[in-house]
Amino acid sequence: MALIVQKFGGSSVADAESIQRVARRIVETHEAGNEVVVVVSAMGDSTDELLDLASECTASPAPRELDMLLTAGERISMALLAMTIKGMDVDAFSFTGSQAGMITTPDHGSAKIVDVTPGRVREALDKGAVAIVAGFQGFSRDSRDITTLGRGGSDTTAVALAAALNADVCEIYTDVDGVFTTDPRMVPLARKIDSITAEEMLELAASGAKVLHLRAVEYARRHGVVLHVRSSFTGEEGTIVYDPAKGHPKGVQVEESVITGIAAEKSEAKITVGGVPDVPGKAAQIFEVVAKTDANIDIIVQNISEEGRTDISFTVPVTDGERVLAALEAEREALGFGRLKMDDQIAKIAVVGAGMRTSTGVSAQLFRALYDAGINIEMISTSEIRISVVTRADRMEEAVRVLHTAFGLDAEDEATVYAGTGR
Amino acid sequence: MALIVQKFGGSSVADAESIQRVARRIVETHEAGNEVVVVVSAMGDSTDELLDLASECTASPAPRELDMLLTAGERISMALLAMTIKGMDVDAFSFTGSQAGMITTPDHGSAKIVDVTPGRVREALDKGAVAIVAGFQGFSRDSRDITTLGRGGSDTTAVALAAALNADVCEIYTDVDGVFTTDPRMVPLARKIDSITAEEMLELAASGAKVLHLRAVEYARRHGVVLHVRSSFTGEEGTIVYDPAKGHPKGVQVEESVITGIAAEKSEAKITVGGVPDVPGKAAQIFEVVAKTDANIDIIVQNISEEGRTDISFTVPVTDGERVLAALEAEREALGFGRLKMDDQIAKIAVVGAGMRTSTGVSAQLFRALYDAGINIEMISTSEIRISVVTRADRMEEAVRVLHTAFGLDAEDEATVYAGTGR
Repeated sequence: MALIVQKFGGSSVADAESIQRVARRIVETHEAGNEVVVVVSAMGDSTDELLDLASECTASPAPRELDMLLTAGERISMALLAMTIKGMDVDAFSFTGSQAGMITTPDHGSAKIVDVTPGRVREALDKGAVAIVAGFQGFSRDSRDITTLGRGGSDTTAVALAAALNADVCEIYTDVDGVFTTDPRMVPLARKIDSITAEEMLELAASGAKVLHLRAVEYARRHGVVLHVRSSFTGEEGTIVYDPAKGHPKGVQVEESVITGIAAEKSEAKITVGGVPDVPGKAAQIFEVVAKTDANIDIIVQNISEEGRTDISFTVPVTDGERVLAALEAEREALGFGRLKMDDQIAKIAVVGAGMRTSTGVSAQLFRALYDAGINIEMISTSEIRISVVTRADRMEEAVRVLHTAFGLDAEDEATVYAGTGR
Repeated sequence: MALIVQKFGGSSVADAESIQRVARRIVETHEAGNEVVVVVSAMGDSTDELLDLASECTASPAPRELDMLLTAGERISMALLAMTIKGMDVDAFSFTGSQAGMITTPDHGSAKIVDVTPGRVREALDKGAVAIVAGFQGFSRDSRDITTLGRGGSDTTAVALAAALNADVCEIYTDVDGVFTTDPRMVPLARKIDSITAEEMLELAASGAKVLHLRAVEYARRHGVVLHVRSSFTGEEGTIVYDPAKGHPKGVQVEESVITGIAAEKSEAKITVGGVPDVPGKAAQIFEVVAKTDANIDIIVQNISEEGRTDISFTVPVTDGERVLAALEAEREALGFGRLKMDDQIAKIAVVGAGMRTSTGVSAQLFRALYDAGINIEMISTSEIRISVVTRADRMEEAVRVLHTAFGLDAEDEATVYAGTGR
């Protein structure tokens, strides 16, 4: 008997018919002799509808009340799912984040999980019932208030429960077949990846692959939770995300490929601070100012110094761009820089593979492929198992296609692409 | 400084605009120097929409999950209301039934309040904030589950909180101006009643007056809570429901009127068990069978015995009729009756007034008025301050009009009738 956590996103429970389909899958898993814990998001667009209602009522909704409002979404989907399963003669209980023991910090809208005490979930399983848990939500012991985990919250709930219950696997159901070598809507010859290490998945998620949220992958890696990303529409196996140190959950011997996947995104902007006095500590001063804005800096490049002055460029999420510019502008005198400009017409492309550690020549191969296609590289950043480059935004898709072919990732046939966004 | 509990029903918070109107009223009450606790129902038709969703998902929704589902409704309205008030620069916190300390029995769908521990509500008031509480819902300590109070639940929540917090008044906002001498849609010359005793209100509510739920009135009477039923559309004073032993809250000397109001309803059916052997204990046997169906028996009439056999008639809610018939039919042999029939074309009219205790001739006046109008009385039942009669359903409105005039209740002008049902 295995303990399986299954997570279904909003598009999988968008209406009564989808809820019945999801319920049948849960019942099948249960009847195959497994203990099943289900984490569910709010139905379809219902979260957006609640946000619209809030903005009709008031210009800036109080975060505590916004969390109270939004948590109604999963309450509805989990109750409907539980009663549908019970209607199929399998016992089921729904639990709010609070009831399921998702204890968080009191930060409304972006709470962090500090403890998971799933006593009631365990009791339900011990009774032979399926436990349905609301994703995305938690409870703060400090404030005694309901909280939400923010973006990627439901995936994180599922992974955290899987870790706390010592589950055999955490299945993330989505509207694609698994994790692909790259976005199949961009590269029709993208291949589904059967197995990927958590470390690689982390680099892909951090670089813009949307199928799993970075935060959930981080949590899974830290707690050794095996993930299975698979389609809620088919019964096919999807992608296993595992820790190679612990071995593949199915005992499969996976040969490390040099390059596993390619992620790309246009959601970053490049900020260039020009004419910075090239004296020690100046860069630190600039990044202290940026850090105070809470913007996430990704790639940093410092040009070679000329005449005692240098240019520093870095990328931040487009949505943080104006805030960072304003913060730097306010300190222009103290920092002593010349030009300040933002360029939001950039794309970031990341090539990821654990085999990179032991392979040489990967970067040379990458530069050559892009050079041959006439695509200019504006910034470069590397980790042990990733090379990221920044190009013009309008060359992104071409660059990904060229690299996908160059690194031998192309499939023989085109992938099936479902409607939807992968979330 | 007074402590005021204000209850707003679903039609008062049906959309963003209504929520803002309600928020303004709450802010005004707060800024006039009062402590304000608000009890709110789910928005407009949202409870029905959730029920529809449930029935699309499964034929017979599990009661625990149905309560989980339905409580999402008030969660949405209370959060929207709280954030709207905060947007008007008055501090506000929303609380679920559980957070507000509405402790109930574990009976899903019809839980009874067993304790009210509004510690967090009191804390919010002590901080100078408005407390917004979800109506209709509670929490069972035994099952650790969320419950709902069933019909009239939000009124009951408001009254229970008012009692626990020792509030000065519990204002029930509705879409009519207050309690009327009878339904103004039926009798245009109906008058708004300025003050009514809780006892009279109880008889009117039990007899079909829809403006207040029987259960809430009972709770208010038992705990000495003063109610103020008023319009959510105007600023006008409505109807004060008070305990004459404690005196009128505004010190007004109210002269007891012989007849205060007339209620009428068509929701009962008359069941006649014919040819019952006229032996001791037979009636008891019949009503034991009926009691097991949980149907609420109202009026009972036993005819004069002929040839050792008698007829017993009684009224039950139409919705319970078939169940009662089936239960009796199943025991036909043991009970030994002859005919069994149900008549759902009846109306029940109740004339209520505390002055009836000391006045004589009220029933004679009632019978004369109906006789003069050619309306036949089929059953009669009386309490200390009420006379109820059963007539044909199609004569109900005429009977009420005739009695309204006969007992001197007619106003000089016709009442303003708003759209909506009064709930």
